[in-house]
Amino acid sequence: MARTFMTCTPAEAWRIFREHFSPQVSSHQVPVSDALDCILAEEVLAPEDLPPFPRSMMDGFAVLARDTAGASPEQPIRLILVGEVPMGRAAELKLKPGECALVHTGGMIPSGSDAVVMIEHTRQPSPQAVEVLHPVIPGEHIIQPGEDVRRGQIVFHAGHQLRPQDLGGLLALGITQVTVARPPRVGILSQGDEVVPPEQTPGPGQVRDVNSYTLAALTRRAGGHPILLGIAPDRVETLIAMARHGWKTCDLLVISAGSSVSYRDMTAEVINALGRPGVLVHGISIRPGKPTILAVCDGKPVFGLPGNPVSAMVIFELFVSRVIREMMGAPIPFRRTVQARLAKDVPSVSGREDYAQVRLEQRDEEWWAVPIPVKTMLIYSLIHADGFIHVPAESTGLAAGEWVTVFMH
Amino acid sequence: MARTFMTCTPAEAWRIFREHFSPQVSSHQVPVSDALDCILAEEVLAPEDLPPFPRSMMDGFAVLARDTAGASPEQPIRLILVGEVPMGRAAELKLKPGECALVHTGGMIPSGSDAVVMIEHTRQPSPQAVEVLHPVIPGEHIIQPGEDVRRGQIVFHAGHQLRPQDLGGLLALGITQVTVARPPRVGILSQGDEVVPPEQTPGPGQVRDVNSYTLAALTRRAGGHPILLGIAPDRVETLIAMARHGWKTCDLLVISAGSSVSYRDMTAEVINALGRPGVLVHGISIRPGKPTILAVCDGKPVFGLPGNPVSAMVIFELFVSRVIREMMGAPIPFRRTVQARLAKDVPSVSGREDYAQVRLEQRDEEWWAVPIPVKTMLIYSLIHADGFIHVPAESTGLAAGEWVTVFMH
Repeated sequence: MARTFMTCTPAEAWRIFREHFSPQVSSHQVPVSDALDCILAEEVLAPEDLPPFPRSMMDGFAVLARDTAGASPEQPIRLILVGEVPMGRAAELKLKPGECALVHTGGMIPSGSDAVVMIEHTRQPSPQAVEVLHPVIPGEHIIQPGEDVRRGQIVFHAGHQLRPQDLGGLLALGITQVTVARPPRVGILSQGDEVVPPEQTPGPGQVRDVNSYTLAALTRRAGGHPILLGIAPDRVETLIAMARHGWKTCDLLVISAGSSVSYRDMTAEVINALGRPGVLVHGISIRPGKPTILAVCDGKPVFGLPGNPVSAMVIFELFVSRVIREMMGAPIPFRRTVQARLAKDVPSVSGREDYAQVRLEQRDEEWWAVPIPVKTMLIYSLIHADGFIHVPAESTGLAAGEWVTVFMH
Repeated sequence: MARTFMTCTPAEAWRIFREHFSPQVSSHQVPVSDALDCILAEEVLAPEDLPPFPRSMMDGFAVLARDTAGASPEQPIRLILVGEVPMGRAAELKLKPGECALVHTGGMIPSGSDAVVMIEHTRQPSPQAVEVLHPVIPGEHIIQPGEDVRRGQIVFHAGHQLRPQDLGGLLALGITQVTVARPPRVGILSQGDEVVPPEQTPGPGQVRDVNSYTLAALTRRAGGHPILLGIAPDRVETLIAMARHGWKTCDLLVISAGSSVSYRDMTAEVINALGRPGVLVHGISIRPGKPTILAVCDGKPVFGLPGNPVSAMVIFELFVSRVIREMMGAPIPFRRTVQARLAKDVPSVSGREDYAQVRLEQRDEEWWAVPIPVKTMLIYSLIHADGFIHVPAESTGLAAGEWVTVFMH
């Protein structure tokens, strides 16, 4: 068994964890039309030029640019109109010098022409004649074949998360299936003799299971596939059996236990029973979230989260979401942030990182971050929060009036 | 038929549209565990106190606070240990002065006690005795009944979009079903003789349908339910028939037509055939996106979007996403923004709003926004973009070096 590190910093905890865990991206094919927000598992090359033919960017007349040299409203240049390029068909016309053809926005440019004169820059004195009022240069108002994308070009790198326009870009090239990272199966096990399912009316001393559902929602946000493993009682044998089932059937296991000393010891014992090296970090210098366990059991990541909902969410976002993203080969997404001034002092202790929940208030065109009192057992403190601020380990606190970055929920 | 406004500002266009459209929120019930990102259609009241009983925030001993007055490591106060409150059960003990009971984090406080002494502030000289080393005040380390939420309190307002912690907050109160806004059905009709489905190899002069899928993805992002109505040819009768089918079966209709003059006229004619008042705005002083139609037909919103993908996306996000949100009673979500310095001049014309696509580059710890050349027919210009910047109508452009707000894609 590896040495267990007691109460290290979040950065040390992450480093120790990553030394023992090598994420493997597993992939599958999905239709592009269903691939919004999926993570590409492979780079994508353009199979063809886009556009495949020269297209007009305007309604107007396809011309040979040099025929228009010197044209002006006073001295228009007259061209012979030989026809129209219909939309959706090949331009079968072949223009000779002195000729032009009607083209529509997006239509194909006929051969023999190399520019388009906007319809607004022409007059049509008769059905067979067009007067050009302004000269054009070769290529004007034309999109050339391959100007958007060249055949063989890398259009997306592995690890890219697909946005609406990316689906369009793939389909424009005729790519209708993509290989994307398979969402890791994240097993979530709640623990505690006092915990009952939310649909059940709790008896005296009992509480409803909240963490299974908030952690499942955070799993979805990170791109993973949550699997609820139920509520385990505080008996080591049952807990090991339920945890082992989860560990076997999932790619990552989260045990959300109580925060009391007896729970914490039991969770560590259960995790060590699952595989090697087992518990790597037990206790992190962070608030909230100190009683956190990071472990790797025979190659699979296992986390022991504090049972109170505020700590569980903070630690999940800091460690578990990050691991889920790495298991898909994806970077951590930018988080939406707001710059705000701190409404009250936030005391901290040097050597400990603090994550303080705040409410945003607008005062005189400025955003103010109002800290919400820390009571980690109050789930509604997270609900009244618009986001959180981070107090780094080297800081002994933040002062009222300081500018802070609020990471939005 | 209402007067049609030609080329008004985006703000005027929105005002005219909203004068003729009154969004109605339609709702349905869903299980809370499936309600992530849903919009509440009704306010939610707490049906009970949370927590329903006094809970300990620490591992320690439940005591009567006044028994601990004056306690110190040098002069500890000795109490009689009368038992333990097991997790998940009622505290059946009743303490008398001079007595204490072992409690765990989250456990119920027994009657007769009003504070908890942390285990770290005690010694246990014998199994029946506890020495208290520090005094506590009444209520210390206890969460009182209703301290998180009081019965009858409004916990969420209508229009709130549910986050992971909100699901936890609802379930903690035993609320397992919620009434949320039904996602509006957004019909998306592509138009053009040159447009073929993406799985088909385009012939000469043809292009693959891109807009149906990018607009469907944007619809999902806004919270709507996209319905692809297919590709209509450029024949008025067929187009009217397909548009009418979409208009009847959906709550909102989007027609993505070509940008050529003939297309635009045809789209307006089709929309006017669907119902009254019909086309309200035809042409907006915006770039890209000028040939946009805003309409209301017998109470349902109908949009004619430019056919080129860049304009279609910009206009969709500016108008259609906003309408989808209003149809769910939801505010427009904050968009993630980044402050950056402009790498090149962005010229504009006074009286026109510009939306310029930019790439973000980090140079010497600063973000720079590099404008991407505007060619609205190039779908990959949107893919190379990380976001866009907004040039207001009164501006004649932005200068290189200026600080700008980048709205991220």
